[in-house]
Amino acid sequence: MPYQAPVDQISFILRHVVPFDKVAGTERYAEATDDTVDAILTEAGRMAANVLAPLNRAGDLNPARLENGVVRTSPGFDAGFQAIAEGGWIGLSADPDHGGAGLPQALNMAVNEMLSSACLALQLNPLLTQGQIEALEHHASDELKALYLPKLISGEWTGTMNLTEPQAGSDVGALTTKAEPQGDGTYKITGQKIYITWGDSDFAGNVCHAVLARLPDGEKGTRGISLFMVPKYIPDAEGKPGVANSLKVVSLEHKLGIHGSPTCVMSYEGATGWLIGEEHKGMAAMFTMMNNARLGVGVQGVGVAEAALQQAVAYARDRDQMGPILGHADVRRMLAVARAEIFAARAICLACATATDMARATGDADWAARAALLTPIAKAYGTDVGVRVADAGVQVHGGMGYIEETGASQFLRDVRITPIYEGTNGIQAMDLVGRKLMDEGAAAQALLDEVMDGAREMSHVNPERVEELWKAAETLSDATARMVARAPEDRFAGAAPYLSAFARVLGAYYHLRAAQAGDDDHKALARIYLDRILPRYAADLAEAAAGVADLNAVSDEALGLT
Amino acid sequence: MPYQAPVDQISFILRHVVPFDKVAGTERYAEATDDTVDAILTEAGRMAANVLAPLNRAGDLNPARLENGVVRTSPGFDAGFQAIAEGGWIGLSADPDHGGAGLPQALNMAVNEMLSSACLALQLNPLLTQGQIEALEHHASDELKALYLPKLISGEWTGTMNLTEPQAGSDVGALTTKAEPQGDGTYKITGQKIYITWGDSDFAGNVCHAVLARLPDGEKGTRGISLFMVPKYIPDAEGKPGVANSLKVVSLEHKLGIHGSPTCVMSYEGATGWLIGEEHKGMAAMFTMMNNARLGVGVQGVGVAEAALQQAVAYARDRDQMGPILGHADVRRMLAVARAEIFAARAICLACATATDMARATGDADWAARAALLTPIAKAYGTDVGVRVADAGVQVHGGMGYIEETGASQFLRDVRITPIYEGTNGIQAMDLVGRKLMDEGAAAQALLDEVMDGAREMSHVNPERVEELWKAAETLSDATARMVARAPEDRFAGAAPYLSAFARVLGAYYHLRAAQAGDDDHKALARIYLDRILPRYAADLAEAAAGVADLNAVSDEALGLT
Repeated sequence: MPYQAPVDQISFILRHVVPFDKVAGTERYAEATDDTVDAILTEAGRMAANVLAPLNRAGDLNPARLENGVVRTSPGFDAGFQAIAEGGWIGLSADPDHGGAGLPQALNMAVNEMLSSACLALQLNPLLTQGQIEALEHHASDELKALYLPKLISGEWTGTMNLTEPQAGSDVGALTTKAEPQGDGTYKITGQKIYITWGDSDFAGNVCHAVLARLPDGEKGTRGISLFMVPKYIPDAEGKPGVANSLKVVSLEHKLGIHGSPTCVMSYEGATGWLIGEEHKGMAAMFTMMNNARLGVGVQGVGVAEAALQQAVAYARDRDQMGPILGHADVRRMLAVARAEIFAARAICLACATATDMARATGDADWAARAALLTPIAKAYGTDVGVRVADAGVQVHGGMGYIEETGASQFLRDVRITPIYEGTNGIQAMDLVGRKLMDEGAAAQALLDEVMDGAREMSHVNPERVEELWKAAETLSDATARMVARAPEDRFAGAAPYLSAFARVLGAYYHLRAAQAGDDDHKALARIYLDRILPRYAADLAEAAAGVADLNAVSDEALGLT
Repeated sequence: MPYQAPVDQISFILRHVVPFDKVAGTERYAEATDDTVDAILTEAGRMAANVLAPLNRAGDLNPARLENGVVRTSPGFDAGFQAIAEGGWIGLSADPDHGGAGLPQALNMAVNEMLSSACLALQLNPLLTQGQIEALEHHASDELKALYLPKLISGEWTGTMNLTEPQAGSDVGALTTKAEPQGDGTYKITGQKIYITWGDSDFAGNVCHAVLARLPDGEKGTRGISLFMVPKYIPDAEGKPGVANSLKVVSLEHKLGIHGSPTCVMSYEGATGWLIGEEHKGMAAMFTMMNNARLGVGVQGVGVAEAALQQAVAYARDRDQMGPILGHADVRRMLAVARAEIFAARAICLACATATDMARATGDADWAARAALLTPIAKAYGTDVGVRVADAGVQVHGGMGYIEETGASQFLRDVRITPIYEGTNGIQAMDLVGRKLMDEGAAAQALLDEVMDGAREMSHVNPERVEELWKAAETLSDATARMVARAPEDRFAGAAPYLSAFARVLGAYYHLRAAQAGDDDHKALARIYLDRILPRYAADLAEAAAGVADLNAVSDEALGLT
């Protein structure tokens, strides 16, 4: 069965579960009426299902390849990208002054989810371009903005992020790529970058690389890093792609999945670049791209999960083994748990996007803190759900799930990158218990207070269920206070299970909000979540409290048996 | 870092954790002294590491292929198989009357684990041959035994299991392959079988297919099924491969992993077969193969987990990002949890094998019931651990884990079949709460009593830890009594989490036995398990108690969004 865009589900969450009404009530986003939202979701969903979804397997079977230094993309990807560009989907949230639609991130992320469901490998290209657009809007000079933004927003050109080097992954500060000022406002960029997603293609008029590099007077570590715009072709006086820059794609990686997305090793050999933002402030600009991209990656997890689940349900309805296997209790359990987790992950991602929108529309620091708090949770939980649901999809297919022709295993292979890139989920968890609790846990406690107050106001939900949520939120609040008081290493040892518990509590809250406003299916799904997913918060928090000493008590030799 | 066989760890479990001393104390297995066990483990481990492990990636990159109806195997697999055969590893537990070594299954499974670590795709071949040997030993006529067993045990010929047909997977009784008696003691077999592992190769002198088919007077369903030996080449008067039988490999599947293992669609076109056992009693003979194979598959999960973890630890030791990442708390958490789970899964598998040995050596029905109870737990938990650890291995590698060159993702792709074949893990869980509790839970309660009594006798273990285990075992015992009293559909709805809780309690018990007898590392690993893995039994049992009504309350439309 082909993918069907979950327009009604997303629309329901925006209306009844997350505070999107507040976003639409701001002056900035006054255009985001219910009608506009539904029209946009419907149109994007139709394009995703009809144009992009048919490309997904072709991309897997015919990976992007490097021919004489040029990337040749998978069959149909060119037309697919043009459809994304022509629909205006790349610049949905971008600044109207440069051709964007200026609509909320919540809407943009909803659209991104549907594109990810349909063809993750291709969707990565506009996702990274959106990240670069955001960085340029916040940090670039007016000149750079005027030159690059209209072309990135229209999809005429595409954008990349160049952080990683062989020795500098999670430790970005270890990078060695050099930038030398030329005295004319330009810089010569020299170095090698790896894992550059969509580092080249045969359908972009230009590929705009945002490259982290160190100036001669840049200190060691992250504080000596600057960000540069390094285009594949240097724009001429009219802003058209001119002479080729001194950079090239050295090779493409052979990956577990997203074969249609070329992952490039890039070599910069005295390439001409322009500074984005201030010297030595590259990390700030890069974090603008990363935060947007992190939420975007969480949304990718939700998107692949949705597509994988739809296929698994269709298979379970058709596959007859003593009756349709959809009627077998254990199969139904896997599918119902998956559906309940997708709802929760989608709501968390849209809550995060909504907070981003409120922060932008109002300038309110509390909304900004809410968005910052929710970003690592949305990224890690969204992608964990992506992997879990795709894995369940394989399992529901039985032997057929292991055969590549069904596509069930492609979902698993593709989505498996999402807990890794844009900061591994371990990094997300450390960000949550480190940076995001540095306010003594104020933002976290404010959110949990809201959950507890919200629970109290629910009149259409079984009071026992409300009590379960309330108790979980209170326990998490206590655990948060204890986490804030701990030494960093103990925090980090418990970071991942703490994040997991937080996601369960939020997921249960959003499910009960849906049960309050929704129909019997919403109530039934909420019961699934509260019976089968929420209760695991207790063991998560027990593990989160265990600390680092016991981990260090196991010798390296016992871990590796050498 | 190359794979290193965990000889000391396996030997420790056999001496201190599972009752292997009882096995070695029987007359049948008196040869299995400590010295013999260590010599065999050392020799098999050396062969696995030196001969098989180097073939693993070659098999992935050069899948078995079908050329003019003949399967061409991956580079080096021929020599690898000969090394397994010449070592005597295929017939380690087989009947000495036909060339087997007659040693315990516990030892055989320990060897199988090491071969699985080294090269899962190749190890499948002897595993299935072992299953066929066992079925022939128990059910075949003396004539068939004399003809086939010596050649299967020596590795001159190999064996397969032919159950599945396109419409008959978990529902074996739906099969349509026909067997027509020819009046001369032979039968003509006609039908198509799918998912036939190692259905052909270019290194076996003959491929012996054990095929389930229905006789003309066979009733519908599983009670009308008989088992036949259908060799690729019909043995001549001297027992040598003679004329080709009327069967062929139609095609090979394109799979997520185990590329070196040819998964065949087989066509039988009036092929000559010989009855194994009695007419219409094929399922009994097949279950002999399946039970052995189910434990063997659990052991495969442990084997791949071991290899994946060793590689991840080596990578984490070498990869420097602000110090070796092995020192980062979250990475160490992933690795320590993986190591603790591998210990638990290995102990459960060896406990199951030990019970099988005791049943065989003593004829005691209690030991047989113990083995039957532990088989689905060993299969499901062993393979779940296999997938979890391989997944963690990818995650620890970060971006490198997604690049195929490192091999981390191959472990994940390869091991992903193990929760599916030989009965999905959902089928295992239903077997546990269905057939294996049909004694009113007597076997389960006997095992839990042993756990509680054993816990009481521990003097070198922190009493608080013992109390935690005792409480968990008691809660599981109560849950077992309730499970026995439930309607079948409610049992099945809770089957998978019930199995998970059972595995956690057993894992904790074996960890505390190790802590009682072992060194600081054993004690430290036991703490990891009791802090981070055991406590999740409570949520498992809560989920197990939830029943089927809430699952059925979610409409099909809400599950699939259509």
